[in-house]
Amino acid sequence: MREQHVYGAAEKAVWKHAMGPDRWQIPAVIEELKAKAKSEGLWNLWMAPYLDPKSEHSPGLTVQEYAPLAEIMGAVPWASEIFNCSAPDTGNMEVLIKYGNEDQKKRFLKPLVDGSIRSCFAMTEKKVASSDATNIQSSIVLHGEDYLIDGLKWWTSGAMDPRCGLCIFMGKTDPSAERHVQQSMILVPMPSAGLTIVRPLTVFGYDDAPHGHAEVEFKGVRVPAGNLLVGEGKGFEIAQGRLGPGRIHHCMRLIGVAERALSLMCARAHERVAFGKPLSTQGTVRADIAKARLLIDQCRLLCLQAAREIDSGGVKAARHNIALIKVAAPQMASWVVDRALQVHGAAGFCDDYPLAFLYAQSRALSMADGPDEVCA
Amino acid sequence: MREQHVYGAAEKAVWKHAMGPDRWQIPAVIEELKAKAKSEGLWNLWMAPYLDPKSEHSPGLTVQEYAPLAEIMGAVPWASEIFNCSAPDTGNMEVLIKYGNEDQKKRFLKPLVDGSIRSCFAMTEKKVASSDATNIQSSIVLHGEDYLIDGLKWWTSGAMDPRCGLCIFMGKTDPSAERHVQQSMILVPMPSAGLTIVRPLTVFGYDDAPHGHAEVEFKGVRVPAGNLLVGEGKGFEIAQGRLGPGRIHHCMRLIGVAERALSLMCARAHERVAFGKPLSTQGTVRADIAKARLLIDQCRLLCLQAAREIDSGGVKAARHNIALIKVAAPQMASWVVDRALQVHGAAGFCDDYPLAFLYAQSRALSMADGPDEVCA
Amino acid sequence: MREQHVYGAAEKAVWKHAMGPDRWQIPAVIEELKAKAKSEGLWNLWMAPYLDPKSEHSPGLTVQEYAPLAEIMGAVPWASEIFNCSAPDTGNMEVLIKYGNEDQKKRFLKPLVDGSIRSCFAMTEKKVASSDATNIQSSIVLHGEDYLIDGLKWWTSGAMDPRCGLCIFMGKTDPSAERHVQQSMILVPMPSAGLTIVRPLTVFGYDDAPHGHAEVEFKGVRVPAGNLLVGEGKGFEIAQGRLGPGRIHHCMRLIGVAERALSLMCARAHERVAFGKPLSTQGTVRADIAKARLLIDQCRLLCLQAAREIDSGGVKAARHNIALIKVAAPQMASWVVDRALQVHGAAGFCDDYPLAFLYAQSRALSMADGPDEVCA
Amino acid sequence: MREQHVYGAAEKAVWKHAMGPDRWQIPAVIEELKAKAKSEGLWNLWMAPYLDPKSEHSPGLTVQEYAPLAEIMGAVPWASEIFNCSAPDTGNMEVLIKYGNEDQKKRFLKPLVDGSIRSCFAMTEKKVASSDATNIQSSIVLHGEDYLIDGLKWWTSGAMDPRCGLCIFMGKTDPSAERHVQQSMILVPMPSAGLTIVRPLTVFGYDDAPHGHAEVEFKGVRVPAGNLLVGEGKGFEIAQGRLGPGRIHHCMRLIGVAERALSLMCARAHERVAFGKPLSTQGTVRADIAKARLLIDQCRLLCLQAAREIDSGGVKAARHNIALIKVAAPQMASWVVDRALQVHGAAGFCDDYPLAFLYAQSRALSMADGPDEVCA
Repeated sequence: MREQHVYGAAEKAVWKHAMGPDRWQIPAVIEELKAKAKSEGLWNLWMAPYLDPKSEHSPGLTVQEYAPLAEIMGAVPWASEIFNCSAPDTGNMEVLIKYGNEDQKKRFLKPLVDGSIRSCFAMTEKKVASSDATNIQSSIVLHGEDYLIDGLKWWTSGAMDPRCGLCIFMGKTDPSAERHVQQSMILVPMPSAGLTIVRPLTVFGYDDAPHGHAEVEFKGVRVPAGNLLVGEGKGFEIAQGRLGPGRIHHCMRLIGVAERALSLMCARAHERVAFGKPLSTQGTVRADIAKARLLIDQCRLLCLQAAREIDSGGVKAARHNIALIKVAAPQMASWVVDRALQVHGAAGFCDDYPLAFLYAQSRALSMADGPDEVCA
Repeated sequence: MREQHVYGAAEKAVWKHAMGPDRWQIPAVIEELKAKAKSEGLWNLWMAPYLDPKSEHSPGLTVQEYAPLAEIMGAVPWASEIFNCSAPDTGNMEVLIKYGNEDQKKRFLKPLVDGSIRSCFAMTEKKVASSDATNIQSSIVLHGEDYLIDGLKWWTSGAMDPRCGLCIFMGKTDPSAERHVQQSMILVPMPSAGLTIVRPLTVFGYDDAPHGHAEVEFKGVRVPAGNLLVGEGKGFEIAQGRLGPGRIHHCMRLIGVAERALSLMCARAHERVAFGKPLSTQGTVRADIAKARLLIDQCRLLCLQAAREIDSGGVKAARHNIALIKVAAPQMASWVVDRALQVHGAAGFCDDYPLAFLYAQSRALSMADGPDEVCA
Repeated sequence: MREQHVYGAAEKAVWKHAMGPDRWQIPAVIEELKAKAKSEGLWNLWMAPYLDPKSEHSPGLTVQEYAPLAEIMGAVPWASEIFNCSAPDTGNMEVLIKYGNEDQKKRFLKPLVDGSIRSCFAMTEKKVASSDATNIQSSIVLHGEDYLIDGLKWWTSGAMDPRCGLCIFMGKTDPSAERHVQQSMILVPMPSAGLTIVRPLTVFGYDDAPHGHAEVEFKGVRVPAGNLLVGEGKGFEIAQGRLGPGRIHHCMRLIGVAERALSLMCARAHERVAFGKPLSTQGTVRADIAKARLLIDQCRLLCLQAAREIDSGGVKAARHNIALIKVAAPQMASWVVDRALQVHGAAGFCDDYPLAFLYAQSRALSMADGPDEVCA
Repeated sequence: MREQHVYGAAEKAVWKHAMGPDRWQIPAVIEELKAKAKSEGLWNLWMAPYLDPKSEHSPGLTVQEYAPLAEIMGAVPWASEIFNCSAPDTGNMEVLIKYGNEDQKKRFLKPLVDGSIRSCFAMTEKKVASSDATNIQSSIVLHGEDYLIDGLKWWTSGAMDPRCGLCIFMGKTDPSAERHVQQSMILVPMPSAGLTIVRPLTVFGYDDAPHGHAEVEFKGVRVPAGNLLVGEGKGFEIAQGRLGPGRIHHCMRLIGVAERALSLMCARAHERVAFGKPLSTQGTVRADIAKARLLIDQCRLLCLQAAREIDSGGVKAARHNIALIKVAAPQMASWVVDRALQVHGAAGFCDDYPLAFLYAQSRALSMADGPDEVCA
């Protein structure tokens, strides 16, 4: 399917759309491919038995079985969405399955599982180091039968997607409580009065339209009290439970990124001639290729080891190895893509190749879900 | 002057302009600052005595004296232009001084020296590894009293600047000659019939407007035979003579880039608090800062050593050390900026800080004027 | 068994012996432990079903089952020998099983399998880059019913062991033949007339007594023609067949080396106090420990992957991954041991800890069985 | 002089002596060369005008002038001694010049300056992290007209030299005083009753005989009260004053080590042939050589910059850059020697080349005078 539907025409079309004036609209090909994937049962592939034990929403692949598929999808930035496997929707569905009540599931999980809406996750704050959750400044205050939500969030990926119907918001319900029970999470329908997209953010100059990363202001946003997840003070716990699976999915995709970069690097090295010989005859290029092969394969094995641990013992049992790959995979992918860039010469930096974009994406994932220093 | 005129209001204004709809026009502040700099004699600071022995066009600073000024200018991407010290104009002026005849100098050197036009340099080709000059495919063919020029060039920086009045073009006059005398260089006025800007190229996601990097098609562009530099077959020699000084200027500026990144990193480490302590108390952050200081200082000393060699023995005498810093400076700057990014968290990747842009610029300079592998 | 018999008293005793005047004799504890291991069936653990399908000489562990045991043994330099699992004996037994005839097996394989003799492998030559087998200068010349052997070999590990009874020698029987059929291998009993130990070689100052690495001169050494392995011209093929398993065993042991270094590093970081706090609170030490954990685990997984491939498809099927870990494991172990050294301060460099010795051993294994550049 | 007197015959002779049974005696060639150097005025070259303003003991070279000479001497481990320029004598003379009274100078400085005795420095302790001077456990206790000295020191380099006549000892005179005035330094004649050499220590497998690194026990060693330097509580201050110049000398010598390794690497790469071509045609070898050139030159420039600062503003003015090169030079030299090792294949690890020894020495200097983490 990758060769047929994604690489080539579709990828070029989506890229062109993403660089054009309608970039914040969804290109038609995306929805066409989604429909096709869904009709073939290639849907919610990520939803492993620990989440969906009766295979109600998914084919019921284990995490280990999902890994090679996520890798293939990862090679093209938007391919995961086609199969309803993209962040932050997957993490948000996981949260709703684990922590949502029946009403919450009906209103928000069902459309996410169907792919009829998309979602975002508002955790990171602009003014503080929010990887330390105790720094969070946003507030969720009970006011009669509603909660009032205030705060300035950013890096809220997907908030500008016109299909975005849900924001899971993290804020403090009780700043005076013990450190890890000050925070709560609440479901905010989108659009909502008082919720304003301030601007799209760029990553090394890319705005990743139409998905995008938004700065979002919440000013007296009012939602029914029933939208709170689990109960006041459960925000930190929910956040922790959300992180692990999200991180391993990122790693699987990054392995796909690195494989694609390596494959481009090898092709270029064979075809490009300088000083009378293909680049592939140069010792430094060969050494880079060998090292890339080594780093990718080692990283994949560690990722699969973590997947095995989730499958057999649950996310907590894999905590240790997820932390290791969370740090290792972005560094590995950044290095491999950087070496692929070098072999491509100036061409690699522009958008005739996906490399500069993939570098930006890989490097940023050293930060997403917490910087290396926090995770290691 | 930097604090007063550049950092702060001016830099923000230029950045906003560069991201806005008029990005390919020149923002007014640039020309205002240029006039101010020129009136204060801060003009052509780069033009060392070996080029301008009677200080006709410049204050006559040595390369060593210019180095710390170039470093200061380098910290802001467009600051060099304010003082008529920016690439590719400097390299083109150097070529005209060294290889231009009186008529060529009058028509092209004078307005460049005055700052009334800007220029570009069309060497890199899209389809071949043009760091190996024998690969060049563009042609310069005598046709009566004119030369006809054909070829597809890219990474022609500055070609889209509305003030661009000259393109120095490299092509082959005799593909059957001995390897290093096949090429010639010729002066192409801009605009010219048959010369078409195909598109701006991006570096990572940045198009560097209004300077920019163009793909340029030359299709039967006709220029008078008198526009040829020196004579047929001299292209390779001229290119070699142009490279050295251009490379050392890039390195001086990259040291300024790295100093700025380090300064931002230190400030951020002091002010940002996570888990109850400023980031500056973390051992890994401190180790990165110490290493950045070491790398920058060592690189600057090597750069000054090469400058000293140019001052005392000419560009050729510095050839060896210029090659070393050409490789070392972009790698050093990329590393320092990357570490500064890490300390800034997600904020560093977007354009609230100059870091992501400076990374893109530093990384790309590992390729500009030839990849590391060719230079080392 | 490790805690009980090896770490502590035995290790200290063997080290003291190895540094003392009788260093080239075998310390009694070695033979005592060997007898104990053999009596418990902990013997020839490395001999996997592809070599010993009927478990005649071994418990019949798969390569995957052997890996964690080899890792444990690797943590102490001489522990593999206790279980008859040490190089070069294992490689030599492998050669005899695969390529020896019945008579050769009876005379040489049987005592090796029993542990009544030990052996060495004379391939590397002093005067040429013998990782390129076509460079080999030693000769094996038929003379009536005998072969006459001449050559200067070095890094012939184990040749000075008083129990050494066999040397497998590589030389050229026909220097005029096609590149890869010039070489042959022959079994040389030890001692033999004309075979002289020139001197022991050191590795970073260590002579590794009583095992040791010898420079060995062969001057007209005469052995019966029946000692030739397989036939003339088969030397290169036998060498290739010997390399793979030997390399993976080295890697398994290096993982044990790295685990031991990491364990010492963690213990030291916890107990050592500087500037009022244990070293384990320093960010750079913590980062090194995390990275060590990551590198070791990734390397082990790759090693196990290669083991799995040997178990299911034979050595050839694992060729690719054996090449990768052959390069990766020594680099990984060298790095981990180096970081452990740093945490130990000056103490690490002397022999109060095994670290300096383990560094020497790990670093040298980047070269053993061919330098990285040849294997990658 | 280097080619004539040192490389070649002398170096081989000293090495052979150092590996032989008389290794703890001084080989005759050393004293012969010393006499020759002294007679030619090549003596105390390190003693810069800030220490010896009237050139009483030395030719009065500046630190900058000394640097290239120290570099040449550094290439051979024992060459500095020939010119009375070796540690720890230089640091001890510096201490005596700065802090000794007339009587102390007459008894200890004069014979050191003349080269009639050698000396050692007993600071590092076995049981604590003594880079943090407040950890020091040794005691110096006034008892009538004498001080009684107790403590267990190690890494006391030179203590086993039969010519050693002085030990400068650091201990606490008042453990209850404020942190940095608890320590004192005292001059201990050698031999002295109660002062016992416990054992020589090795660095990797080298004992560096006849200089050597000793573990030394001080048990009730009694010295006259007049042997105390400056006064009680001045030990920390004296130690600080001693460190700077000692560190820069080590760096100068390490640059010589690296230059020698690079020179050996280049020679080997040219002469060694594998797979039909000299190693010098391999891209990775060429890249290593280029990087070595870059690292050495940058390090030397930084070292000279610190030397310039000492010459113009004294040791304190250079404090910052001395700290940087203290960290940079051993890492640089270790890397260069390691790469030279790689090009030498197995030969590099044994003592046919000086590389393994130079590696051990360079790596250990990351720790000498304080680990990187303390200095940076």
